[in-house]
Amino acid sequence: MAIRLMAVTDDAHEAADLVRILLEIHPYVDHVQIREKQKPAGLVYQLCMELLEEGLPAHKLWLNDRVDVALLLGLKQVHIPGQGLPLEELKKLYPDLRIGAPVHSLEEAVQAEAAGVAYALYGHCFSTASKKGKSPQPLANLGSIRQNIRIPLYGIGGIDVERLVSLKALELDGVAVMSGIFSAKDPLSAVKKLREECLRLDEIQ
Amino acid sequence: MAIRLMAVTDDAHEAADLVRILLEIHPYVDHVQIREKQKPAGLVYQLCMELLEEGLPAHKLWLNDRVDVALLLGLKQVHIPGQGLPLEELKKLYPDLRIGAPVHSLEEAVQAEAAGVAYALYGHCFSTASKKGKSPQPLANLGSIRQNIRIPLYGIGGIDVERLVSLKALELDGVAVMSGIFSAKDPLSAVKKLREECLRLDEIQ
Repeated sequence: MAIRLMAVTDDAHEAADLVRILLEIHPYVDHVQIREKQKPAGLVYQLCMELLEEGLPAHKLWLNDRVDVALLLGLKQVHIPGQGLPLEELKKLYPDLRIGAPVHSLEEAVQAEAAGVAYALYGHCFSTASKKGKSPQPLANLGSIRQNIRIPLYGIGGIDVERLVSLKALELDGVAVMSGIFSAKDPLSAVKKLREECLRLDEIQ
Repeated sequence: MAIRLMAVTDDAHEAADLVRILLEIHPYVDHVQIREKQKPAGLVYQLCMELLEEGLPAHKLWLNDRVDVALLLGLKQVHIPGQGLPLEELKKLYPDLRIGAPVHSLEEAVQAEAAGVAYALYGHCFSTASKKGKSPQPLANLGSIRQNIRIPLYGIGGIDVERLVSLKALELDGVAVMSGIFSAKDPLSAVKKLREECLRLDEIQ
């Protein structure tokens, strides 16, 4: 199966610009994560509404952090960041909610699976502008994590076309890409190249 | 009836310090609004849990912005800021939720009442450190707002003991105080003085 692709927004675009980009790129990604921490909740709600109305499929849309925005939009997917709402309480109150969660170690990955999360997001995998001065998590950990959890395992952090091959080798199910798409001069072209490489790696495997 | 008192947290205290202050002052206020915009949702959830476990009555606690935190805690009160979640959609999905909302004009106050909000918060009433460089809203508007809405009308912004008398004259139902409590050297003493003045004004009316 080809590596799945999640586009994670970078909180650096105006809402209208972001909507335009997402409407262009969504056919080429499996998931879109709306991670607009600096934007007020009402604006995030509005931009998601617009995306849904303009045809972005609801099942592709993951809300970062703001479960309330997701609930109000009728969305069933959220990504809960490291210091976000408690996963087990969330699953208790909303058993049907699909929750993605970041992990930084085998222990966290096992805990996340036990809490019922839908995917574990490991990172950051490589040095990246959005995590300046912070060392990447060792890729070597991915082997034991892969062996010990059954839920989909995604990687994030500094992922570009060239690095996909090593993540494929580590048997990741997917990758989440932020700067590689949203800092690109041409996000659509960047996404298409990532997608092509995912498909190519799948064929040569 | 005495002017009701809402303590609004200022997002400038460590969680442990904030919990300590709130547990001291809550017997002297009618409402506590948790407005900790810079703190991650998980931390806001935890500190509210602690407040509730330590005896702060749930009916006094209003969550600013984060409806999801309120829902997870089983709280029924939220304050939705200016660019927050859409009031009417919220009331549709959660008819029992009590919602406070800011207003800056008669028009907004009438709209807020029509949307079913529990109180309108007008401000800022006086120059205040947290709204540096911004002119206060004219107090004169409060007369027509008072005449045109039935829901409780609160004032916020630069409110101190001396200014309570004019807000009482304008027939406000309550006041929300941030710096006057949380920037005070002794928040408990500040709250007690505000409370005493509210009671005194009620008696001399």
